[in-house]
Amino acid sequence: MKKTLAIIGLGLIGGSLAIALKGFEDYEIVGVDVSQPTLRYASEHGVGDRVTERAADVLPQADVVVLALHPQGILDFLTEHRDRFKPGALVWDVCGIKTAILEGAAALPDTVDFVGCHPMAGTEFSGVEHAFGEMFRDSHFLMVPRETSRPEHLALLERMAAWIGCKDVYRTTPEAHDALIAYTSQVMHIIAVAVCDDPTLFDCKGYEGSSFRGCTRVAALDVGLWTQLFSLNQPALLEVLDRLIGNLQSYREVLASGDREALAKKLAFSAARKRQMDLPGPDLLA
Amino acid sequence: MKKTLAIIGLGLIGGSLAIALKGFEDYEIVGVDVSQPTLRYASEHGVGDRVTERAADVLPQADVVVLALHPQGILDFLTEHRDRFKPGALVWDVCGIKTAILEGAAALPDTVDFVGCHPMAGTEFSGVEHAFGEMFRDSHFLMVPRETSRPEHLALLERMAAWIGCKDVYRTTPEAHDALIAYTSQVMHIIAVAVCDDPTLFDCKGYEGSSFRGCTRVAALDVGLWTQLFSLNQPALLEVLDRLIGNLQSYREVLASGDREALAKKLAFSAARKRQMDLPGPDLLA
Repeated sequence: MKKTLAIIGLGLIGGSLAIALKGFEDYEIVGVDVSQPTLRYASEHGVGDRVTERAADVLPQADVVVLALHPQGILDFLTEHRDRFKPGALVWDVCGIKTAILEGAAALPDTVDFVGCHPMAGTEFSGVEHAFGEMFRDSHFLMVPRETSRPEHLALLERMAAWIGCKDVYRTTPEAHDALIAYTSQVMHIIAVAVCDDPTLFDCKGYEGSSFRGCTRVAALDVGLWTQLFSLNQPALLEVLDRLIGNLQSYREVLASGDREALAKKLAFSAARKRQMDLPGPDLLA
Repeated sequence: MKKTLAIIGLGLIGGSLAIALKGFEDYEIVGVDVSQPTLRYASEHGVGDRVTERAADVLPQADVVVLALHPQGILDFLTEHRDRFKPGALVWDVCGIKTAILEGAAALPDTVDFVGCHPMAGTEFSGVEHAFGEMFRDSHFLMVPRETSRPEHLALLERMAAWIGCKDVYRTTPEAHDALIAYTSQVMHIIAVAVCDDPTLFDCKGYEGSSFRGCTRVAALDVGLWTQLFSLNQPALLEVLDRLIGNLQSYREVLASGDREALAKKLAFSAARKRQMDLPGPDLLA
């Protein structure tokens, strides 16, 4: 008999996982959502093997549970359903912060093996109708195990990550994850929205190139989700944001000074860091 | 007999133009460069129809001259060769600032029709070996005519822009161009280098997603070129940079306040601007 892998929340990420995980080993992929239009769309488009709105019915049978909700939704779900998980189940989430989530998971019974995860993929769209199975191709899969995490579950997660196309799996701690993500992801979103606040935004159509599109692409974000992600990681994000503003001001000063030699030296320093950082990455033009 | 179109400077942009313009109407594309390795590479890889190191020999025969040098190189070339251009020739440049270039072009004889141009395409690489003919596909072509510009030359430029794949041609003034470019391009490059100055840059490998790659891609810039571009557009760039720092600080404040509702409102405002700005653009995932 097939094992059950339940995905709670068929939004952009959950829906994409439900597509990408189809056919993985001997698991039946069951999509769970509270929205009837989402369930209908998922059912009609093969998002998962089957769908249901009844999490309470699926959880006792589910060997693996993926929580693909907004951060607060994950915390609420863990509280509401803490006693419904199948003993021995692996439960993992996909959200972009880990400290708050792992604190919430601490309330689970010992029989549930919770591992914080973060597949670093996504688009600026949301909803199951934008889900696609190739989303995770060549992306990083971050994994935050707990001390009690079972090795066979970590191995299972690695196989799932490979199946959906992730290029590597990194293990880390909640604190290290959240500090780095504040830099590599959250502040990129703050930059994108801050750039779009410029009063000349609407004048610049026809004058934008790939650097503008690349930098601002993520500004059209899911407001509810990112309000939670930013707020739940506030201290780390403020630190990174202050460092960024300081670095921008430092560029402002050298530019204002009119000292071309100093400007060139500063640019050479930064450009060399970027080149060094990317080597030997394949992502330069991605 | 074929007409002559000379491209001065076979770097990334000039080389790409020399490839992309091959076959355009009845023009022979002549690539001009002072570097022997560049000329050899161009000759061996079909960059242009033929190449030469002798600008002084080509200019008197050239019906169209494209200046694809760094800004200071363009200004120096115009001074050195002002009396060598063929009477009635169309001369255009491709560089990312226009006020300083058009000031330099004012010294040309009346017989030369100079039009400032800016095809908004490029990569973070430089040199003829990174040139490719598809570079201009779907990009904007900005055109800054002078009062005396001949309509048939503007029409010729529009045909060239279409031939190399640009999706549209916008006409503007030097001042408007430089103010908008400070925002859409120059400050994107300042952001990219400032982000790479963060001390945690090298720790973040494996933790970066598409937003980080999109924002920092252009940080590996051509230092000499960008030092000139920034310096020659200093006042406009400082204005945009100050506005950006102000917008980032405004996000910092609302985040530090812990007021989630205010943060959500601010994010909703910015995200809606981005969505409105992109409509009905095809570039969302570019």
